[in-house]
Amino acid sequence: MSDVLNQLGDILEQRKIATAEKSYVASLHAKGLNKILEKVGEEATETILAAKDAQSSGDNSDVIYETADLWFHTLVALSHLGERPEAVINELARRFDMSGLEEKASRADK
Amino acid sequence: MSDVLNQLGDILEQRKIATAEKSYVASLHAKGLNKILEKVGEEATETILAAKDAQSSGDNSDVIYETADLWFHTLVALSHLGERPEAVINELARRFDMSGLEEKASRADK
Amino acid sequence: MSDVLNQLGDILEQRKIATAEKSYVASLHAKGLNKILEKVGEEATETILAAKDAQSSGDNSDVIYETADLWFHTLVALSHLGERPEAVINELARRFDMSGLEEKASRADK
Amino acid sequence: MSDVLNQLGDILEQRKIATAEKSYVASLHAKGLNKILEKVGEEATETILAAKDAQSSGDNSDVIYETADLWFHTLVALSHLGERPEAVINELARRFDMSGLEEKASRADK
Repeated sequence: MSDVLNQLGDILEQRKIATAEKSYVASLHAKGLNKILEKVGEEATETILAAKDAQSSGDNSDVIYETADLWFHTLVALSHLGERPEAVINELARRFDMSGLEEKASRADK
Repeated sequence: MSDVLNQLGDILEQRKIATAEKSYVASLHAKGLNKILEKVGEEATETILAAKDAQSSGDNSDVIYETADLWFHTLVALSHLGERPEAVINELARRFDMSGLEEKASRADK
Repeated sequence: MSDVLNQLGDILEQRKIATAEKSYVASLHAKGLNKILEKVGEEATETILAAKDAQSSGDNSDVIYETADLWFHTLVALSHLGERPEAVINELARRFDMSGLEEKASRADK
Repeated sequence: MSDVLNQLGDILEQRKIATAEKSYVASLHAKGLNKILEKVGEEATETILAAKDAQSSGDNSDVIYETADLWFHTLVALSHLGERPEAVINELARRFDMSGLEEKASRADK
């Protein structure tokens, strides 16, 4: 799995500097942060709707697809702000490396 | 990075069957899918707000934190539906393994 | 103000049965509830972003515009489910007719 | 209906200057715009989930309740920015007063 997010980070950096005509990612960067965040909001809604439908239908393919879309657009947002996927992974690792502690305790710090 | 999402998948499975008193994750599962999806919506909003503030302040720490929270709660939702983090990673890999193709082309199928 | 939401309710009912080619509202109904709710999610995100920008710029015109869009699409969703704007107004009236009581108290029942 | 939103506007202005201990609205203003917008995002998600459940159950009471909650929190956000409910109503009126024109046409200007 490491390779995927690592490679995706590299791809996102390359496409950030591509021409907007050739790359969906570059076109998002050209439109600016608000447009990228609108996509994050859209994909969050689509993930929520797909999860509800998955619960009814028993078919998870759409909710997996929409979750990937949501993660992807959050990574474009982070790339726009100068961050790579590793930042999210490191944050998740930090929380769960508190081995033996329930994550609930760490959340109380929030 | 692979280890983190892999291990997180294992942790989420363990906590899914823990008692709700001891685990935040178990308490979410006990409350049901709607409550988990409400958290996904909340964390999406917090990610969007944190990204706006990061653009003003130049400090990305909150937006990284909120994105990790958002990913985490989407993984709890997927776990509730019987899926692991690998499903999201595989979907992202599928899209970007189309090497030489811009992702835009594949998005047209959506 | 009463006339506006009343008339809007009438307009929404008329357009619900129009042809999708001629009416944006009819086209939403034809696409189904998920598509209408995706619009609600989109407009909520756009309202949030516009509010952040209004705070920076001091110009409220966009946030008013997006809030109207959000209300409009929630009314299309309610119309899809067979409800009119009066249902929302009556619910708001119910809460605040508890004269002398802070709304906080009534929220505790939620 | 006019009286309800008009009166609600008055109530929101009064509570904006109340003490946070006594009023939920005042406590939101004290926490600031981000907290108010987080509530808008939460209520949008709850409206979407309630609409999905209403479609399954045939019971619209929750989706009406959540829509009222969503409108209410958008009005608190607008009040925080110095606007009253009339601004939203006027914007809706402006769109639909273009009598004889489908609203679709006006949306193309967006």
